[in-house]
Amino acid sequence: MNTPPMPAHSDASSQTDLLSRVTIVLSRTSHPGNIGSAARAMKTMGLTRLTLVTPKIFPSPEAVALASGAGDVLDNARVVATLDEALADATYSLAVSARARDLGPTPRLARTGALELITRVRRGERVALLFGNETSGLSNEELQRCQGAVTIAANPDYSSLNLAAAVQVLAYELRVAAFSAPEMADAAGKSVVTPFSSPPASHAEQEGFYQHLEQVMLASGFLDPARPRRLMPKLRRLFARAGLEKDEVNILRGILAAVAPGREDR
Amino acid sequence: MNTPPMPAHSDASSQTDLLSRVTIVLSRTSHPGNIGSAARAMKTMGLTRLTLVTPKIFPSPEAVALASGAGDVLDNARVVATLDEALADATYSLAVSARARDLGPTPRLARTGALELITRVRRGERVALLFGNETSGLSNEELQRCQGAVTIAANPDYSSLNLAAAVQVLAYELRVAAFSAPEMADAAGKSVVTPFSSPPASHAEQEGFYQHLEQVMLASGFLDPARPRRLMPKLRRLFARAGLEKDEVNILRGILAAVAPGREDR
Repeated sequence: MNTPPMPAHSDASSQTDLLSRVTIVLSRTSHPGNIGSAARAMKTMGLTRLTLVTPKIFPSPEAVALASGAGDVLDNARVVATLDEALADATYSLAVSARARDLGPTPRLARTGALELITRVRRGERVALLFGNETSGLSNEELQRCQGAVTIAANPDYSSLNLAAAVQVLAYELRVAAFSAPEMADAAGKSVVTPFSSPPASHAEQEGFYQHLEQVMLASGFLDPARPRRLMPKLRRLFARAGLEKDEVNILRGILAAVAPGREDR
Repeated sequence: MNTPPMPAHSDASSQTDLLSRVTIVLSRTSHPGNIGSAARAMKTMGLTRLTLVTPKIFPSPEAVALASGAGDVLDNARVVATLDEALADATYSLAVSARARDLGPTPRLARTGALELITRVRRGERVALLFGNETSGLSNEELQRCQGAVTIAANPDYSSLNLAAAVQVLAYELRVAAFSAPEMADAAGKSVVTPFSSPPASHAEQEGFYQHLEQVMLASGFLDPARPRRLMPKLRRLFARAGLEKDEVNILRGILAAVAPGREDR
Protein backbone atom coordinates (compact mmCIF):
# COMPACT_ATOMS: atom_id res chain seq x y z
CA MET A 1 0.00 0.00 0.00
CA ASN A 2 1.16 3.48 -0.73
CA THR A 3 0.51 6.23 1.73
CA PRO A 4 0.73 9.90 0.97
CA PRO A 5 3.72 11.91 2.20
CA MET A 6 3.49 13.26 5.73
CA PRO A 7 1.73 16.57 5.85
CA ALA A 8 4.13 19.47 5.46
CA HIS A 9 5.95 19.98 8.71
CA SER A 10 8.25 22.71 9.84
CA ASP A 11 11.16 20.43 10.47
CA ALA A 12 10.74 17.08 8.78
CA SER A 13 14.45 16.43 8.36
CA SER A 14 15.11 16.67 12.08
CA GLN A 15 12.28 14.24 12.70
CA THR A 16 13.89 11.86 10.27
CA ASP A 17 17.11 12.31 12.26
CA LEU A 18 15.27 11.38 15.45
CA LEU A 19 14.11 8.11 13.94
CA SER A 20 17.60 7.36 12.65
CA ARG A 21 18.90 7.39 16.23
CA VAL A 22 16.65 4.54 17.35
CA THR A 23 18.20 1.10 16.93
CA ILE A 24 16.02 -1.96 16.52
CA VAL A 25 17.73 -5.01 18.01
CA LEU A 26 16.47 -8.48 17.10
CA SER A 27 17.89 -11.16 19.36
CA ARG A 28 18.28 -14.79 18.31
CA THR A 29 15.78 -14.58 15.46
CA SER A 30 14.96 -18.04 14.10
CA HIS A 31 13.41 -17.26 10.72
CA PRO A 32 15.26 -15.07 8.21
CA GLY A 33 11.94 -14.12 6.60
CA ASN A 34 11.00 -12.37 9.84
CA ILE A 35 14.19 -10.33 9.67
CA GLY A 36 13.23 -9.23 6.17
CA SER A 37 9.66 -8.39 7.16
CA ALA A 38 10.93 -6.48 10.19
CA ALA A 39 13.27 -4.46 7.96
CA ARG A 40 10.35 -3.60 5.70
CA ALA A 41 8.21 -2.58 8.68
CA MET A 42 11.07 -0.39 9.96
CA LYS A 43 11.65 1.38 6.67
CA THR A 44 7.99 2.20 6.10
CA MET A 45 8.17 4.19 9.33
CA GLY A 46 11.56 5.77 8.64
CA LEU A 47 13.69 3.59 10.93
CA THR A 48 17.03 2.53 9.47
CA ARG A 49 19.28 1.11 12.19
CA LEU A 50 19.00 -2.66 12.63
CA THR A 51 21.23 -4.84 14.82
CA LEU A 52 20.96 -8.62 14.85
CA VAL A 53 22.24 -10.66 17.78
CA THR A 54 23.23 -14.18 16.66
CA PRO A 55 20.48 -14.63 14.07
CA LYS A 56 20.03 -18.30 13.20
CA ILE A 57 20.29 -17.65 9.45
CA PHE A 58 21.58 -14.38 8.01
CA PRO A 59 22.13 -13.17 5.37
CA SER A 60 19.48 -15.08 3.49
CA PRO A 61 17.59 -14.78 0.20
CA GLU A 62 14.36 -15.19 2.15
CA ALA A 63 15.15 -12.11 4.23
CA VAL A 64 15.88 -10.15 1.05
CA ALA A 65 12.62 -11.30 -0.57
CA LEU A 66 10.48 -10.29 2.37
CA ALA A 67 12.31 -7.00 2.89
CA SER A 68 10.89 -5.99 -0.49
CA GLY A 69 12.12 -2.40 -1.04
CA ALA A 70 13.95 -2.29 2.31
CA GLY A 71 17.02 -4.22 1.22
CA ASP A 72 19.21 -1.29 2.27
CA VAL A 73 18.15 -1.77 5.89
CA LEU A 74 19.34 -5.39 5.66
CA ASP A 75 22.56 -4.38 3.89
CA ASN A 76 23.37 -1.96 6.68
CA ALA A 77 22.34 -4.31 9.49
CA ARG A 78 24.97 -4.95 12.11
CA VAL A 79 25.40 -8.58 13.19
CA VAL A 80 26.89 -9.07 16.66
CA ALA A 81 27.65 -11.98 18.95
CA THR A 82 26.25 -10.66 22.22
CA LEU A 83 23.47 -8.44 23.44
CA ASP A 84 25.98 -6.31 25.33
CA GLU A 85 27.71 -5.58 22.04
CA ALA A 86 24.40 -4.65 20.45
CA LEU A 87 23.51 -2.25 23.25
CA ALA A 88 27.02 -0.95 24.00
CA ASP A 89 26.57 2.62 22.77
CA ALA A 90 22.94 2.94 23.84
CA THR A 91 22.22 5.02 26.91
CA TYR A 92 18.71 3.65 27.24
CA SER A 93 17.03 0.55 25.95
CA LEU A 94 13.55 -0.90 26.23
CA ALA A 95 12.79 -4.60 25.99
CA VAL A 96 9.62 -5.54 24.13
CA SER A 97 8.26 -7.77 26.80
CA ALA A 98 6.11 -10.77 26.37
CA ARG A 99 4.75 -10.65 29.85
CA ALA A 100 5.44 -8.98 33.17
CA ARG A 101 8.28 -10.73 35.04
CA ASP A 102 8.82 -10.96 38.73
CA LEU A 103 11.91 -8.83 38.84
CA GLY A 104 11.68 -7.32 35.43
CA PRO A 105 10.72 -3.72 34.99
CA THR A 106 7.00 -2.94 34.86
CA PRO A 107 6.22 -2.71 31.17
CA ARG A 108 4.78 0.53 29.86
CA LEU A 109 2.40 0.48 26.92
CA ALA A 110 3.68 0.89 23.38
CA ARG A 111 2.54 4.50 23.06
CA THR A 112 4.18 5.59 26.30
CA GLY A 113 7.36 3.65 25.55
CA ALA A 114 7.70 5.15 22.08
CA LEU A 115 7.18 8.64 23.46
CA GLU A 116 9.80 8.01 26.11
CA LEU A 117 12.36 6.79 23.56
CA ILE A 118 11.77 9.74 21.24
CA THR A 119 11.94 12.20 24.14
CA ARG A 120 15.30 10.75 25.12
CA VAL A 121 16.56 10.92 21.53
CA ARG A 122 15.57 14.58 21.41
CA ARG A 123 17.87 15.09 24.39
CA GLY A 124 20.76 13.52 22.54
CA GLU A 125 20.55 9.97 23.87
CA ARG A 126 21.03 6.89 21.74
CA VAL A 127 18.27 4.41 22.38
CA ALA A 128 17.44 0.85 21.43
CA LEU A 129 14.35 -1.32 21.27
CA LEU A 130 14.95 -5.02 21.82
CA PHE A 131 12.84 -7.87 20.41
CA GLY A 132 13.39 -11.49 21.43
CA ASN A 133 13.15 -14.83 19.69
CA GLU A 134 9.88 -15.63 17.88
CA THR A 135 9.03 -18.57 20.11
CA SER A 136 10.77 -18.07 23.41
CA GLY A 137 10.76 -14.27 23.57
CA LEU A 138 13.42 -12.62 25.72
CA SER A 139 15.26 -14.42 28.50
CA ASN A 140 15.32 -12.86 31.96
CA GLU A 141 19.01 -12.12 31.42
CA GLU A 142 18.24 -10.24 28.20
CA LEU A 143 15.39 -8.35 29.83
CA GLN A 144 17.58 -7.28 32.73
CA ARG A 145 20.10 -5.77 30.32
CA CYS A 146 17.52 -3.12 29.44
CA GLN A 147 16.47 -0.11 31.47
CA GLY A 148 12.79 -0.75 30.97
CA ALA A 149 10.17 -2.84 29.21
CA VAL A 150 7.37 -2.06 26.81
CA THR A 151 4.37 -4.16 25.85
CA ILE A 152 1.74 -4.06 23.14
CA ALA A 153 -1.65 -4.47 24.81
CA ALA A 154 -3.31 -7.37 23.06
CA ASN A 155 -6.21 -9.80 23.19
CA PRO A 156 -5.63 -11.85 26.35
CA ASP A 157 -7.05 -14.92 24.60
CA TYR A 158 -4.64 -14.63 21.67
CA SER A 159 -1.76 -12.27 22.11
CA SER A 160 0.64 -13.86 19.67
CA LEU A 161 1.77 -11.00 17.43
CA ASN A 162 4.10 -12.02 14.64
CA LEU A 163 7.59 -10.56 15.22
CA ALA A 164 7.39 -8.22 12.23
CA ALA A 165 3.89 -7.16 13.27
CA ALA A 166 5.22 -6.16 16.69
CA VAL A 167 8.05 -4.24 15.01
CA GLN A 168 5.47 -2.55 12.77
CA VAL A 169 3.30 -1.39 15.68
CA LEU A 170 6.22 -0.01 17.68
CA ALA A 171 7.86 1.58 14.62
CA TYR A 172 4.52 3.21 13.87
CA GLU A 173 4.28 4.57 17.42
CA LEU A 174 7.87 5.85 17.18
CA ARG A 175 7.04 7.69 13.97
CA VAL A 176 3.90 9.21 15.46
CA ALA A 177 5.93 10.28 18.52
CA ALA A 178 8.74 11.74 16.39
CA PHE A 179 6.25 13.81 14.41
CA SER A 180 4.35 14.95 17.46
CA ALA A 181 5.21 18.07 19.42
CA PRO A 182 8.45 17.76 21.37
CA GLU A 183 8.66 17.13 25.09
CA MET A 184 5.14 15.81 25.21
CA ALA A 185 4.00 14.74 28.60
CA ASP A 186 1.85 11.68 28.95
CA ALA A 187 -1.89 12.08 29.32
CA ALA A 188 -1.53 12.70 33.04
CA GLY A 189 0.59 15.74 32.28
CA LYS A 190 3.69 14.16 33.72
CA SER A 191 6.87 14.16 31.69
CA VAL A 192 7.70 10.62 30.66
CA VAL A 193 11.40 11.14 31.21
CA THR A 194 13.06 12.31 34.40
CA PRO A 195 15.54 15.02 33.49
CA PHE A 196 19.20 14.16 33.83
CA SER A 197 21.64 16.48 35.51
CA SER A 198 24.71 14.67 34.23
CA PRO A 199 24.79 12.65 31.00
CA PRO A 200 23.28 9.19 31.24
CA ALA A 201 25.64 6.26 31.72
CA SER A 202 26.13 4.08 28.66
CA HIS A 203 25.13 0.44 28.70
CA ALA A 204 28.80 -0.55 28.99
CA GLU A 205 29.30 1.78 31.97
CA GLN A 206 26.23 0.41 33.69
CA GLU A 207 27.34 -3.17 33.12
CA GLY A 208 30.79 -2.30 34.45
CA PHE A 209 29.18 -1.07 37.65
CA TYR A 210 27.03 -4.19 38.03
CA GLN A 211 30.08 -6.42 37.58
CA HIS A 212 32.06 -4.42 40.09
CA LEU A 213 29.18 -4.52 42.58
CA GLU A 214 28.80 -8.27 42.14
CA GLN A 215 32.53 -8.85 42.71
CA VAL A 216 32.48 -6.84 45.93
CA MET A 217 29.38 -8.64 47.15
CA LEU A 218 30.95 -12.00 46.39
CA ALA A 219 34.28 -11.12 48.02
CA SER A 220 32.53 -9.87 51.15
CA GLY A 221 30.49 -13.05 51.40
CA PHE A 222 27.18 -11.16 51.22
CA LEU A 223 26.41 -12.78 47.87
CA ASP A 224 26.63 -16.55 48.18
CA PRO A 225 26.90 -18.09 44.70
CA ALA A 226 25.26 -21.22 46.04
CA ARG A 227 22.28 -19.22 47.27
CA PRO A 228 22.14 -15.96 45.33
CA ARG A 229 18.64 -14.98 46.60
CA ARG A 230 18.08 -13.06 43.36
CA LEU A 231 20.15 -10.22 44.78
CA MET A 232 21.63 -9.05 41.47
CA PRO A 233 18.29 -8.92 39.62
CA LYS A 234 16.79 -6.97 42.52
CA LEU A 235 19.66 -4.48 42.51
CA ARG A 236 19.50 -4.13 38.72
CA ARG A 237 15.82 -3.38 38.98
CA LEU A 238 16.43 -0.69 41.58
CA PHE A 239 19.10 1.14 39.59
CA ALA A 240 17.26 0.72 36.28
CA ARG A 241 14.26 2.40 37.86
CA ALA A 242 16.40 5.37 38.80
CA GLY A 243 18.25 5.54 35.48
CA LEU A 244 21.97 5.86 36.24
CA GLU A 245 23.99 8.88 35.21
CA LYS A 246 27.70 8.76 34.34
CA ASP A 247 28.53 10.78 37.43
CA GLU A 248 26.57 8.41 39.65
CA VAL A 249 28.28 5.33 38.24
CA ASN A 250 31.60 6.98 39.08
CA ILE A 251 30.51 7.68 42.65
CA LEU A 252 29.12 4.20 43.18
CA ARG A 253 32.25 2.57 41.78
CA GLY A 254 34.33 4.90 43.93
CA ILE A 255 32.52 3.62 47.02
CA LEU A 256 33.00 0.02 45.94
CA ALA A 257 36.73 0.59 45.35
CA ALA A 258 37.07 2.29 48.72
CA VAL A 259 35.33 -0.42 50.74
CA ALA A 260 36.99 -3.29 48.88
CA PRO A 261 40.48 -2.10 48.02
CA GLY A 262 42.34 -4.06 45.38
CA ARG A 263 39.19 -4.66 43.38
CA GLU A 264 38.98 -1.29 41.73
CA ASP A 265 41.16 -2.33 38.81
CA ARG A 266 38.88 -5.12 37.70
CA MET B 1 5.12 -12.96 21.36
CA ASN B 2 2.82 -13.18 24.29
CA THR B 3 1.52 -10.09 25.96
CA PRO B 4 0.04 -10.00 29.40
CA PRO B 5 -3.72 -10.00 29.72
CA MET B 6 -5.28 -6.59 29.89
CA PRO B 7 -5.58 -5.55 33.51
CA ALA B 8 -8.96 -6.16 35.03
CA HIS B 9 -11.31 -3.52 33.77
CA SER B 10 -14.75 -2.65 34.96
CA ASP B 11 -16.23 -3.21 31.59
CA ALA B 12 -13.89 -5.37 29.53
CA SER B 13 -16.68 -7.42 28.01
CA SER B 14 -18.32 -4.37 26.55
CA GLN B 15 -15.01 -3.30 25.07
CA THR B 16 -14.68 -6.72 23.50
CA ASP B 17 -18.19 -6.21 22.16
CA LEU B 18 -17.12 -2.90 20.64
CA LEU B 19 -14.34 -4.60 18.71
CA SER B 20 -16.65 -7.37 17.57
CA ARG B 21 -18.80 -4.80 15.83
CA VAL B 22 -16.01 -3.64 13.53
CA THR B 23 -15.78 -5.56 10.26
CA ILE B 24 -12.51 -5.79 8.36
CA VAL B 25 -13.15 -6.01 4.62
CA LEU B 26 -10.35 -7.16 2.31
CA SER B 27 -11.14 -6.51 -1.34
CA ARG B 28 -9.68 -8.52 -4.22
CA THR B 29 -6.76 -9.87 -2.18
CA SER B 30 -4.21 -11.60 -4.44
CA HIS B 31 -2.22 -13.69 -1.96
CA PRO B 32 -3.99 -16.09 0.42
CA GLY B 33 -1.06 -15.83 2.84
CA ASN B 34 -1.93 -12.18 3.34
CA ILE B 35 -5.48 -13.14 4.27
CA GLY B 36 -4.09 -15.51 6.90
CA SER B 37 -1.66 -12.93 8.28
CA ALA B 38 -4.43 -10.32 8.36
CA ALA B 39 -6.64 -12.73 10.35
CA ARG B 40 -3.82 -13.24 12.86
CA ALA B 41 -3.27 -9.48 13.17
CA MET B 42 -7.00 -8.98 13.74
CA LYS B 43 -7.31 -11.63 16.42
CA THR B 44 -4.32 -10.38 18.41
CA MET B 45 -6.23 -7.12 18.81
CA GLY B 46 -9.61 -8.74 19.51
CA LEU B 47 -11.21 -8.21 16.08
CA THR B 48 -13.20 -11.17 14.77
CA ARG B 49 -15.33 -10.14 11.80
CA LEU B 50 -13.64 -10.61 8.44
CA THR B 51 -15.29 -10.23 5.04
CA LEU B 52 -13.51 -11.06 1.79
CA VAL B 53 -14.63 -9.57 -1.51
CA THR B 54 -13.71 -11.87 -4.42
CA PRO B 55 -10.38 -13.09 -3.04
CA LYS B 56 -8.21 -14.58 -5.77
CA ILE B 57 -7.61 -17.80 -3.78
CA PHE B 58 -9.67 -18.75 -0.74
CA PRO B 59 -9.86 -20.96 1.22
CA SER B 60 -6.23 -21.96 1.08
CA PRO B 61 -3.77 -23.95 3.20
CA GLU B 62 -1.39 -20.98 3.00
CA ALA B 63 -3.97 -18.73 4.60
CA VAL B 64 -4.49 -21.29 7.37
CA ALA B 65 -0.74 -21.63 7.96
CA LEU B 66 -0.19 -17.90 8.28
CA ALA B 67 -3.27 -17.39 10.42
CA SER B 68 -1.48 -19.45 13.08
CA GLY B 69 -3.87 -19.54 16.04
CA ALA B 70 -6.46 -17.36 14.30
CA GLY B 71 -7.99 -20.11 12.18
CA ASP B 72 -11.39 -19.35 13.68
CA VAL B 73 -11.34 -15.89 12.12
CA LEU B 74 -10.79 -17.52 8.72
CA ASP B 75 -13.47 -20.16 9.38
CA ASN B 76 -15.98 -17.46 10.16
CA ALA B 77 -14.94 -15.19 7.30
CA ARG B 78 -17.70 -14.19 4.94
CA VAL B 79 -16.87 -14.38 1.23
CA VAL B 80 -18.96 -12.11 -1.00
CA ALA B 81 -19.09 -11.19 -4.65
CA THR B 82 -19.38 -7.43 -4.40
CA LEU B 83 -18.27 -4.63 -2.13
CA ASP B 84 -21.87 -3.51 -1.74
CA GLU B 85 -22.68 -6.88 -0.28
CA ALA B 86 -19.72 -6.65 2.08
CA LEU B 87 -20.78 -3.24 3.36
CA ALA B 88 -24.54 -3.84 3.27
CA ASP B 89 -25.19 -3.81 7.02
CA ALA B 90 -22.55 -1.21 7.89
CA THR B 91 -23.77 2.27 8.73
CA TYR B 92 -20.32 3.77 8.30
CA SER B 93 -17.18 2.60 6.55
CA LEU B 94 -13.69 3.96 6.13
CA ALA B 95 -11.45 3.10 3.20
CA VAL B 96 -7.76 2.59 4.00
CA SER B 97 -6.41 4.85 1.38
CA ALA B 98 -3.19 4.63 -0.45
CA ARG B 99 -3.13 8.23 -1.40
CA ALA B 100 -5.45 11.21 -1.57
CA ARG B 101 -7.68 11.09 -4.66
CA ASP B 102 -9.06 13.93 -6.63
CA LEU B 103 -12.65 13.18 -5.86
CA GLY B 104 -12.19 10.96 -2.86
CA PRO B 105 -12.61 12.00 0.75
CA THR B 106 -9.64 13.61 2.52
CA PRO B 107 -8.05 10.82 4.56
CA ARG B 108 -7.77 11.19 8.33
CA LEU B 109 -4.83 9.64 10.17
CA ALA B 110 -5.09 6.12 11.60
CA ARG B 111 -5.49 7.25 15.21
CA THR B 112 -8.31 9.65 14.38
CA GLY B 113 -10.01 7.16 12.09
CA ALA B 114 -9.94 4.40 14.71
CA LEU B 115 -11.33 6.71 17.36
CA GLU B 116 -14.10 7.77 14.99
CA LEU B 117 -15.06 4.17 14.23
CA ILE B 118 -15.11 3.17 17.89
CA THR B 119 -17.11 6.27 18.81
CA ARG B 120 -19.70 5.32 16.23
CA VAL B 121 -19.80 1.74 17.47
CA ARG B 122 -20.41 3.04 20.99
CA ARG B 123 -23.45 4.80 19.57
CA GLY B 124 -24.75 1.52 18.20
CA GLU B 125 -23.48 1.77 14.63
CA ARG B 126 -21.99 -1.11 12.67
CA VAL B 127 -18.79 -0.03 10.99
CA ALA B 128 -16.32 -1.40 8.47
CA LEU B 129 -12.73 -0.79 7.50
CA LEU B 130 -11.88 -1.54 3.87
CA PHE B 131 -8.47 -2.60 2.55
CA GLY B 132 -7.74 -2.88 -1.19
CA ASN B 133 -5.65 -5.15 -3.34
CA GLU B 134 -1.95 -5.55 -2.38
CA THR B 135 -0.67 -4.02 -5.60
CA SER B 136 -3.34 -1.76 -6.98
CA GLY B 137 -4.98 -0.62 -3.74
CA LEU B 138 -8.59 0.52 -3.90
CA SER B 139 -10.25 1.68 -7.09
CA ASN B 140 -12.00 5.03 -7.16
CA GLU B 141 -15.30 3.18 -7.30
CA GLU B 142 -14.47 1.23 -4.16
CA LEU B 143 -13.27 4.33 -2.35
CA GLN B 144 -16.45 6.18 -3.17
CA ARG B 145 -18.52 3.41 -1.60
CA CYS B 146 -17.14 4.44 1.79
CA GLN B 147 -18.10 7.40 3.95
CA GLY B 148 -14.51 8.38 4.58
CA ALA B 149 -10.86 7.45 4.15
CA VAL B 150 -8.05 6.76 6.59
CA THR B 151 -4.31 6.63 6.02
CA ILE B 152 -1.29 5.39 7.94
CA ALA B 153 1.33 8.13 7.92
CA ALA B 154 4.50 6.57 6.57
CA ASN B 155 7.97 7.29 5.26
CA PRO B 156 7.39 9.27 2.06
CA ASP B 157 10.40 7.56 0.48
CA TYR B 158 9.06 4.08 1.19
CA SER B 159 5.46 3.85 2.23
CA SER B 160 4.78 0.30 1.13
CA LEU B 161 3.26 -1.37 4.17
CA ASN B 162 2.47 -5.03 3.72
CA LEU B 163 -1.32 -5.61 3.75
CA ALA B 164 -1.25 -7.53 7.04
CA ALA B 165 1.03 -4.88 8.58
CA ALA B 166 -1.53 -2.21 7.70
CA VAL B 167 -4.28 -4.34 9.20
CA GLN B 168 -2.12 -4.77 12.33
CA VAL B 169 -1.58 -1.03 12.81
CA LEU B 170 -5.25 -0.16 12.37
CA ALA B 171 -6.45 -3.08 14.50
CA TYR B 172 -4.02 -1.91 17.19
CA GLU B 173 -5.41 1.63 17.03
CA LEU B 174 -8.97 0.25 17.21
CA ARG B 175 -8.09 -1.72 20.35
CA VAL B 176 -6.43 1.27 21.99
CA ALA B 177 -9.50 3.36 21.13
CA ALA B 178 -11.91 0.72 22.46
CA PHE B 179 -10.03 0.43 25.73
CA SER B 180 -9.55 4.14 26.17
CA ALA B 181 -11.89 4.75 29.07
CA PRO B 182 -13.22 8.17 30.08
CA GLU B 183 -9.80 8.85 31.58
CA MET B 184 -8.16 7.74 28.30
CA ALA B 185 -4.37 7.93 28.57
CA ASP B 186 -3.28 4.42 29.36
CA ALA B 187 -5.37 1.79 27.62
CA ALA B 188 -4.49 -0.42 30.56
CA GLY B 189 -5.62 2.16 33.07
CA LYS B 190 -2.13 1.97 34.48
CA SER B 191 -0.84 4.55 36.87
CA VAL B 192 2.08 6.61 35.64
CA VAL B 193 3.77 5.86 38.93
CA THR B 194 5.69 2.60 38.85
CA PRO B 195 4.02 0.28 41.32
CA PHE B 196 6.07 -1.06 44.20
CA SER B 197 6.62 -4.77 44.34
CA SER B 198 7.50 -4.65 48.02
CA PRO B 199 6.11 -1.93 50.28
CA PRO B 200 7.89 1.40 50.05
CA ALA B 201 10.52 2.10 52.69
CA SER B 202 9.47 4.49 55.40
CA HIS B 203 11.20 7.80 55.84
CA ALA B 204 12.98 6.40 58.94
CA GLU B 205 14.16 3.34 57.00
CA GLN B 206 15.48 5.50 54.20
CA GLU B 207 17.29 7.79 56.63
CA GLY B 208 18.76 4.76 58.41
CA PHE B 209 20.18 3.63 55.10
CA TYR B 210 21.65 7.04 54.27
CA GLN B 211 23.32 7.24 57.70
CA HIS B 212 24.70 3.75 57.33
CA LEU B 213 25.99 4.56 53.84
CA GLU B 214 27.61 7.76 55.05
CA GLN B 215 29.35 5.97 57.93
CA VAL B 216 30.77 3.32 55.59
CA MET B 217 31.94 5.98 53.14
CA LEU B 218 33.60 7.94 55.94
CA ALA B 219 35.27 4.87 57.45
CA SER B 220 36.62 3.79 54.07
CA GLY B 221 38.03 7.25 53.42
CA PHE B 222 35.97 7.71 50.24
CA LEU B 223 34.02 10.51 51.86
CA ASP B 224 36.38 13.18 53.19
CA PRO B 225 34.51 15.42 55.68
CA ALA B 226 36.88 18.27 54.76
CA ARG B 227 35.94 17.92 51.10
CA PRO B 228 32.59 16.18 50.80
CA ARG B 229 32.13 16.91 47.07
CA ARG B 230 28.33 16.84 47.52
CA LEU B 231 28.50 13.05 47.50
CA MET B 232 25.62 12.50 49.91
CA PRO B 233 23.21 14.86 48.14
CA LYS B 234 24.03 13.18 44.84
CA LEU B 235 23.40 9.70 46.26
CA ARG B 236 20.18 10.84 47.90
CA ARG B 237 19.00 12.21 44.60
CA LEU B 238 19.73 8.91 42.85
CA PHE B 239 17.85 6.74 45.34
CA ALA B 240 15.00 9.22 45.66
CA ARG B 241 14.54 9.05 41.92
CA ALA B 242 14.15 5.28 42.12
CA GLY B 243 11.92 5.33 45.20
CA LEU B 244 13.31 2.79 47.66
CA GLU B 245 11.36 -0.25 48.76
CA LYS B 246 11.71 -1.88 52.20
CA ASP B 247 13.24 -4.94 50.65
CA GLU B 248 15.80 -2.86 48.77
CA VAL B 249 16.85 -0.96 51.89
CA ASN B 250 17.47 -4.32 53.57
CA ILE B 251 19.63 -5.52 50.67
CA LEU B 252 21.61 -2.29 50.48
CA ARG B 253 22.25 -2.27 54.24
CA GLY B 254 23.19 -5.93 54.04
CA ILE B 255 25.86 -5.06 51.48
CA LEU B 256 27.14 -2.21 53.65
CA ALA B 257 27.32 -4.49 56.69
CA ALA B 258 29.15 -7.15 54.70
CA VAL B 259 31.78 -4.84 53.25
CA ALA B 260 32.32 -2.92 56.49
CA PRO B 261 31.84 -5.43 59.29
CA GLY B 262 31.35 -4.03 62.77
CA ARG B 263 29.36 -1.06 61.50
CA GLU B 264 26.07 -2.78 61.03
CA ASP B 265 25.02 -2.10 64.61
CA ARG B 266 25.25 1.65 64.32
